[in-house]
Amino acid sequence: MQAHVDFLVSVIGVQYVHTDTEHRQRCASDQTEDLQYMPEVVVQPATTLEVSRIMAYCNEHLLPVTPRGAGTGLSGGALPVKGGVVLDMKRFDKVLHVDKRNFQVTTEPGVITQVLQEQLKAEGLFYPPDPASKGSCFIGGNVSENSGGPRAVKYGVVKDYVLNLEIVLPNGDVMWTGANVLKNATGYNLTQLIVGSEGTLGVITKIVLRLIPAVKHDLLLLVPFRSAVEACEAVNAIFLAGYTPSALEFMERDALEWSMRYVQSTGIQLPPDVAAHLLIEVDGNHMDELYRDAEAIAQIVQRYDIDEVLMADSHEQKQMLWTLRRKVGEAVKSNSVYKEEDTVVPRAELPELLTIIKRLGEEYGFQSVCYGHAGDGNLHVNIVKAGMSDDDWNNKLTEGIRKLFAEVVRLGGTISGEHGIGLVQKDYMDIAFGNTQLQLMQQIKNIFDPKGILNPGKIFK
Amino acid sequence: MQAHVDFLVSVIGVQYVHTDTEHRQRCASDQTEDLQYMPEVVVQPATTLEVSRIMAYCNEHLLPVTPRGAGTGLSGGALPVKGGVVLDMKRFDKVLHVDKRNFQVTTEPGVITQVLQEQLKAEGLFYPPDPASKGSCFIGGNVSENSGGPRAVKYGVVKDYVLNLEIVLPNGDVMWTGANVLKNATGYNLTQLIVGSEGTLGVITKIVLRLIPAVKHDLLLLVPFRSAVEACEAVNAIFLAGYTPSALEFMERDALEWSMRYVQSTGIQLPPDVAAHLLIEVDGNHMDELYRDAEAIAQIVQRYDIDEVLMADSHEQKQMLWTLRRKVGEAVKSNSVYKEEDTVVPRAELPELLTIIKRLGEEYGFQSVCYGHAGDGNLHVNIVKAGMSDDDWNNKLTEGIRKLFAEVVRLGGTISGEHGIGLVQKDYMDIAFGNTQLQLMQQIKNIFDPKGILNPGKIFK
Repeated sequence: MQAHVDFLVSVIGVQYVHTDTEHRQRCASDQTEDLQYMPEVVVQPATTLEVSRIMAYCNEHLLPVTPRGAGTGLSGGALPVKGGVVLDMKRFDKVLHVDKRNFQVTTEPGVITQVLQEQLKAEGLFYPPDPASKGSCFIGGNVSENSGGPRAVKYGVVKDYVLNLEIVLPNGDVMWTGANVLKNATGYNLTQLIVGSEGTLGVITKIVLRLIPAVKHDLLLLVPFRSAVEACEAVNAIFLAGYTPSALEFMERDALEWSMRYVQSTGIQLPPDVAAHLLIEVDGNHMDELYRDAEAIAQIVQRYDIDEVLMADSHEQKQMLWTLRRKVGEAVKSNSVYKEEDTVVPRAELPELLTIIKRLGEEYGFQSVCYGHAGDGNLHVNIVKAGMSDDDWNNKLTEGIRKLFAEVVRLGGTISGEHGIGLVQKDYMDIAFGNTQLQLMQQIKNIFDPKGILNPGKIFK
Repeated sequence: MQAHVDFLVSVIGVQYVHTDTEHRQRCASDQTEDLQYMPEVVVQPATTLEVSRIMAYCNEHLLPVTPRGAGTGLSGGALPVKGGVVLDMKRFDKVLHVDKRNFQVTTEPGVITQVLQEQLKAEGLFYPPDPASKGSCFIGGNVSENSGGPRAVKYGVVKDYVLNLEIVLPNGDVMWTGANVLKNATGYNLTQLIVGSEGTLGVITKIVLRLIPAVKHDLLLLVPFRSAVEACEAVNAIFLAGYTPSALEFMERDALEWSMRYVQSTGIQLPPDVAAHLLIEVDGNHMDELYRDAEAIAQIVQRYDIDEVLMADSHEQKQMLWTLRRKVGEAVKSNSVYKEEDTVVPRAELPELLTIIKRLGEEYGFQSVCYGHAGDGNLHVNIVKAGMSDDDWNNKLTEGIRKLFAEVVRLGGTISGEHGIGLVQKDYMDIAFGNTQLQLMQQIKNIFDPKGILNPGKIFK
C-alpha cells in the first residue's frame, strides 16, 4: 500500500491523503444502521483532474475506490466494503455558477444541499428537493442516490432537476453526460443513467441543475388521526379532490412521540387516542389562494375520525413541526437497534401497505414505526429490534422483510423510493427485478467499470 | 425470404403479414423529408407474446427489424434503412387501465396520443405532452423519441411522465423496466434509458404513465413583434418576472404566413412590419388568476416594439391559433424541399441563436424559417432549398449545419430537443458528444442488441 499512498500524495499533496485511524474511522461508516468498514486510505481531491488521475491509477492497480459525500446515506452506498480508497469529495464545495438568466446552477458535488438552496433562494431561485438530512448532506450524494424529501410530492425528486453531469469514469476519462437544456432527445439519456447509480458508474465532479422561481408563501397543517389506516386513506382523498400539496407526510404516533422526546419539544399536544398524523403543506405566491386550499383540505380530512387540525402560519411554528418531522429518523436510531426499509407503492395502495406491515409484524414478531412521504406512496418502515432475540433479528426477520417487499411489488411498488439499494438492500433486488433486468444492469456496470473497482459490492450481489 | 414469411405467418396469421408493394410502400417513409426505404415485409402483431416470438426469430436469423408507430417522426427513426421487417405497432391500440385512484394509465403503444388524452380528460385526468402531430402520432412513438410539444415548458416532456415500460428485447425476452411509482431508487434507471432510445434497445409493448389532475381553464395571447430577436428576448423576460406559461411558442413571420396560406385561414391580420409572433398560453383552475397573469405578461411584452396583443378567450379563437401553430411544419413541407433542425439551447441564449442562424444563412446561402418552443429554448430551424443549387444543397449546406450545431453546443445546447437523432442527425452526433460518450452509448446498444438487428442504422454512424 505504501507505493500507492506515495503516488496519491504526489497527485494531491500529503495533507489530503490520510492513513491515520481517525480519518479512516470517520469514513468507515455512514448513517446506515451501525455498519463499519475500514478503508485503507482516505483521499480528498479538489479538482476533476485530480479525481481523473486518482481513478486512472486505482483502475490500473485494481484498488477499490468508494466515493463519499457527507456520509448521510441510509443504504450503505458510501461504505468501503472492500477496503481500499475512500474518495472523500468534501473539498468539491464550490457553487460554480448561478445562471439567473437561465434558471440554472452549476455546482460541485460537495456543497451541502441546504447551503445551495439558501444561496439560490437569495437570488430568487428555488431548488426543491429536500431530504431530511438537507442540513448536512451533499448535493452530489443526493444526485447519486436520486434523493427525494417532502417536497417531491409536488416538485419531483432530484432526477427531475439534473440537466447535465460532469463525471470521471473509472479509467480516468472525463465526460459530460448531456447538455444544459430543458429538453434533450440526443442519444441515450446518460444523465439519467448516472442519477441514482449510487457512485457505481462514475464519480460526479460537476452538476448542472435546473431551477424554478422561488415560491413566496406556504402554510402547514398538522392533522391528528385516531386511525393510522384512515390517515393513509385521507392522503389519497386530498389528491382525488384535485389538490397537490407541496408536502404530505405521514407519521405514526411513535414516530412523532419519539421525535418530540429526542428534540425535547413540548410544542404539540399528543392526546392518547391519536394514532397517526398527516403533516400537510401548501405553497404558492398568493396567500389568499393558500388559505382557500388549506381550508378545502381541512374540510376533506374532516370526513375521517380526527382530532383538532393545527394550522401553522408563523415561521416558528412551521419550523418546530418540520424539525419534529425531520428528526424522526435520528430519534428512531437513538431509541433502538433498527433496520429501515424504504418501501414505495402507488399512492392509493398506502392503507393496504400499512395493514400488511402490521400483519407481518405480528407474524414475524417485529415492532415497526412507519412514517414518510405519503403523498408519493413512499413509506419508511423502521423495524426496531426491541425485544426480538438476536437469532430472530438476524435470521427470521430477513424472511419477513422479503415477504414485505414481495407484497410491495405485488401492489405495483418497489423496494426503494429514495434511499437507494447500496449494501443493505442488494440481497432483495431479485424481488424487484428478474434475471433479465439484473443482467442488463450488471452489463451496464461492466461497461462503465470493466475492472469493478468503483464502489464495489453495491447494488449487485 | 419466403421461409421467414412463412414463419411470421405461422405466428400472427396471414392477414397480418404483408409483402405487397402497397403495405411496404406505406412503411417506407415517415414525415422526415422525402426519404424512402422499402422493407421486405410488414408485420402487425397484437400481443407482447407475438412480438417476443417475432423478435426471437429475427434475432436468430439476423433479420433487421424496424419498429414503427404512426410514422410521424421527423428524424427518420421509423425508416427501415436496412430493409428487413417493419414491426408495425398499429394493432397495439388499447388503453388497458385508467387507474383514477393513482393518477396513472397503462396503455399499449399504438394508441393515438390525442385519443388517449381525450379519454383521460373525460375522467378528470391530464397527460400534458402534446407534440404537433398529437392527432395522428402514437404514444409509443412519443416515448421512443422523448417527444415534447408546447406544454413542455410548464409540464415537462414525455420522460417526465413515464413510470414503467414493458419491453421486448431483441432476443425475445420480455421485461418491465421499473415500477408504477412516483419515486424509485432501485437500481439503474432502465426506464429512462429506454425513453428516447428511438426503438434501438427494445420494442415497447406497454406504457405506464403518471397523470395529473385536469386543468380547468386557459387563456391564449398572440403577440406580434417588429423584431424577431426582440421576440426571443421577451421570452426570457416573462420567466425572469416569475411567470411560467403553459405554452410559449415563437413563430417567425414566414412560418405563420405559410401556415395561414396552408390552412386557408384569414383569422389573423399580419401587418407588413411584423417580423415574428409569440403565442403565449397560461392555464389554471381559476379564471381570475389567469386574467391577472395574462395581464401581467401583456405588460412585460409592452416593453418591446410590438403591435397589438390579441387575447383569445373563446374556444374557436384558441383553436384557430393552435391550428395555425401546429400546421407550420406541414406548411413548410408543402412549400419547398427543406431540412428541419431541432436546435435547443438554454432559454436566455435564444436571441443569440437566432442571430447566428441568420448570419450562417447569409454565409452559406440558405433561407430559414424558424419557429418552436421558445420557452424551452427549443427552436426548429427549417432550412428551405428555395433557390439553392443542388450541389450547394447536398454539400455546402452540411458544413453550414455543422457550424450551426457547433454554435448551439457552444451556447450550452444540443442538436435535438425533441425530434431525436434517428437517421438524419446521426452524422452530427460527434458535435454533441466526444468519443467517450459515443462509445458508452454504442456499448449500451450492444448489450441490449448484441446482433444489431433492432432498428439498425440509427443514432450511430
